[in-house]
Amino acid sequence: MYVTQALHQALQQEPDRIATIFRDRVRTVRESADRVARFAGALRSLGVAPGDLVAILALNSDRYHEYFYAVPWIGAAVHPVNIRLSVPEILDTLRRSDTRVLLVDDTFAPLVAELQFDGLRTVVHIGDGDPLGDALSYEELLSATDPVPDTRTGGDSVLAVLFTGGTTGVPRGVMLSHDNVVVSALGVLASGHVVSPHGRLLHAAPMFHVGGIAYWAAGNVHGAEHVIVPMFDPAAVLGAIARHAVTDALLVPTMIQRLVDSPELGDYDCGTLRHLVYGASPISESLLQRARAAFPSAGFTQVYGMTELAPTATLLSPSDHDEPELRRAAGRAAPHCEIRVVDPTGGAAPPGEIGEIVVRGGNVMLGYLHQRDETAKVVKDGWMHTGDAGYLDDRGYLFVVDRIKDMIITGGENVYSAEVENALAKHPAVAAAAAIGVPDPEWGERVHAVVVLKPDMSASADELRTHCAALIANYKVPGSFAFTDALPLSAAGKVLKRELREDYRSGSG
Amino acid sequence: MYVTQALHQALQQEPDRIATIFRDRVRTVRESADRVARFAGALRSLGVAPGDLVAILALNSDRYHEYFYAVPWIGAAVHPVNIRLSVPEILDTLRRSDTRVLLVDDTFAPLVAELQFDGLRTVVHIGDGDPLGDALSYEELLSATDPVPDTRTGGDSVLAVLFTGGTTGVPRGVMLSHDNVVVSALGVLASGHVVSPHGRLLHAAPMFHVGGIAYWAAGNVHGAEHVIVPMFDPAAVLGAIARHAVTDALLVPTMIQRLVDSPELGDYDCGTLRHLVYGASPISESLLQRARAAFPSAGFTQVYGMTELAPTATLLSPSDHDEPELRRAAGRAAPHCEIRVVDPTGGAAPPGEIGEIVVRGGNVMLGYLHQRDETAKVVKDGWMHTGDAGYLDDRGYLFVVDRIKDMIITGGENVYSAEVENALAKHPAVAAAAAIGVPDPEWGERVHAVVVLKPDMSASADELRTHCAALIANYKVPGSFAFTDALPLSAAGKVLKRELREDYRSGSG
Repeated sequence: MYVTQALHQALQQEPDRIATIFRDRVRTVRESADRVARFAGALRSLGVAPGDLVAILALNSDRYHEYFYAVPWIGAAVHPVNIRLSVPEILDTLRRSDTRVLLVDDTFAPLVAELQFDGLRTVVHIGDGDPLGDALSYEELLSATDPVPDTRTGGDSVLAVLFTGGTTGVPRGVMLSHDNVVVSALGVLASGHVVSPHGRLLHAAPMFHVGGIAYWAAGNVHGAEHVIVPMFDPAAVLGAIARHAVTDALLVPTMIQRLVDSPELGDYDCGTLRHLVYGASPISESLLQRARAAFPSAGFTQVYGMTELAPTATLLSPSDHDEPELRRAAGRAAPHCEIRVVDPTGGAAPPGEIGEIVVRGGNVMLGYLHQRDETAKVVKDGWMHTGDAGYLDDRGYLFVVDRIKDMIITGGENVYSAEVENALAKHPAVAAAAAIGVPDPEWGERVHAVVVLKPDMSASADELRTHCAALIANYKVPGSFAFTDALPLSAAGKVLKRELREDYRSGSG
Repeated sequence: MYVTQALHQALQQEPDRIATIFRDRVRTVRESADRVARFAGALRSLGVAPGDLVAILALNSDRYHEYFYAVPWIGAAVHPVNIRLSVPEILDTLRRSDTRVLLVDDTFAPLVAELQFDGLRTVVHIGDGDPLGDALSYEELLSATDPVPDTRTGGDSVLAVLFTGGTTGVPRGVMLSHDNVVVSALGVLASGHVVSPHGRLLHAAPMFHVGGIAYWAAGNVHGAEHVIVPMFDPAAVLGAIARHAVTDALLVPTMIQRLVDSPELGDYDCGTLRHLVYGASPISESLLQRARAAFPSAGFTQVYGMTELAPTATLLSPSDHDEPELRRAAGRAAPHCEIRVVDPTGGAAPPGEIGEIVVRGGNVMLGYLHQRDETAKVVKDGWMHTGDAGYLDDRGYLFVVDRIKDMIITGGENVYSAEVENALAKHPAVAAAAAIGVPDPEWGERVHAVVVLKPDMSASADELRTHCAALIANYKVPGSFAFTDALPLSAAGKVLKRELREDYRSGSG
């Protein structure tokens, strides 16, 4: 299968249907497909070959949709950059992925001057303003280029490389194939809970995320109109839902929280919403109640997964949400995969017993880019080892209890504690540091740092915050600090994060 | 992906749910899975290795379900034999596929004596009566063997080899992978029209058909209970629907015809039926009206496809059936594939223009067993060339107008005219013969033979019928004959079937 299948179906079945709505710009399937085939031709003229990566650093827009289709159209792979990364982090991922062509919008065009490196050949400006420097104009490329035919590249070919933080603190490029993404899309569609056939689908969560791509692909298979807002903003989201009669939306709990807290909530009619899908973390009981009251026409579905799983592993259906004891669950195995909880020997743990969550199916990634050893550590005999700890109940509901690999989820973004710890360690006054996730009313979790300073040296929380912000994305910078004389260590010398979390809860850390 | 995924999901989620109902025998998921794992162990003990084929020659039963799971459980592939084939035809497919182990039920056990050949090592008797000759008892094997773990073989590995007639008259073994079958299942499930989640699914159409396997696999993904009747019979089907509150059924139009014609129709409550899926041919206007009246709670969905497509290419949804002009259509591309109509140069034909129907997607077969050249003739650049002629309308609805490869569909079975012609040609009195499909009120089409006898020789229709019945399956034997002095030939010497069909229509052939 190939991700562009859905575009050919749309062209064959509903060429005059709306494909994308962005601000006041509305494009039909036919117009959008023509632009895709032209941009594909332009990329080829720029020297992009099958298997190459084309990166994008931009807020959501209708051009993101065109990019998602045009790059695989010529057999290349997308590399959507997390816009929240710091400049050194972005530069690192562009370099390590041999990216030659980068698309930027108006918001990120000014960053390009800092993103130069030898390998980067071409910058394409997809904003509405004038290109900066040597950047080429997207619209001029489109006008100057003839459409090219689809190569229909698919199957096990790489469709996307998505960088995620790694346990070692070094980001890893997750390679997803066409089959990974299409299988995951068909699986969630088979559930019937995620996307309405021929509905109107809201992109308010970032399209650069694996969730954004997966949701986009699933919408395409079901012939959806994509209603796209540049980034999450309560008024923009509520306005888009009401104005375009949006039927389906993907959000993270932090966004849902901001919607229900918004004073404008009552000003908009959101009665067309049928499916509200949320991911990245469970939803609190109180937020769920408020959200159901705010969007009474919508069925709530939770998706649990990870980038390496394209991303869906389990689904908690709308009717599951009616059972109070299931609201802490992540759901049951999605139609396209198998989940297990295994003990340290690799055997299946019985219901109720905690172990590592592992997943097998057509959605398991091809591997980490240029990191065969890292891949072999997590994909064993076809099973993706998530690094998350959890248990299954006797009806197959998965409960995630801990993240073995010390990941913090803040506002829907994954932060690996090692990335934060590496940044802190670079400060001359820091002897040792540990980062943990602590509960936060707005972001679900926030990054909390426990720091040991070197003897006779000093550094304030503010100073350390500024130091980190130059190295890592803002959302990774600790929101709070504690200073201590020594970190609790295991016999093997490993920092005992669980103790740090307990210290925090008891107010002593 | 692997076909056994769904069994693991069922075990994890609903071990005490009913898996199969056959006559008075009801088995839960847990019982059924235990039997699967034991039979898999038995097959391994019998020397079945990964990649080997295990054949079955049987009517539908719960053991067919266990067979479908147990064989891939150890990495082997199923070879369900069409029970309507003649003994020489069956022997040919068993030989050509190197089948070493054959399962037979009570009905077909007596045939085994005629099916001996050097390669066949073991016959397993899955009936309820006593095994004949050297056949092993299925139930005794199960009791004597411990369960073995699933190898979780999948992806591009061969799941099934299904023999279909070939244009040359030689049956071809279609190799379908796990991904082919699971992708096709996810695609039809994504449509929402075929199988109810956690429904009760009726197997009355033969399970040996690709439709039977695909329907079984789709039902498994949706956690269905399989209600199985040995073979189609109006009273048995109506009784099963009423007794087990069946929600979903797969039938061919001939079967639907027999149900609505049945005097017992009014005696049974069929109000639980939600999805009635039919395939193999479109449904006539009058039959559709009667069927909708008979089963008012059911949505009717047509599936068009072929064995090589695992099998679904297009779906005509229940609401499509509301548009009179669409009732002659085969539907639109299913979610998992792309369809096109191409002209002889391979270019896409514009809407309304007739060309060959070609299909691309995750459901396109691996190829024909041991027939690389034949495979290359039909699968070109990923596109399966169906050999059917049709056109697309401007909404992407496919209309099948002719079968390029001279296939006759009678009672849901495909008959290649070459197979019939080869059999006729073996009669000493036959100089030339052509087989065509002609309309038949009961079977949709029936095989009609136009025969040229050798000078001074004679043979009656009855004599030729008896001659054919010894060589080919009963449903392939011509139901009617016409004798003529010469067949109409093209300049290239090809028989002009179209002229023969017109002669028949006008009453002169």
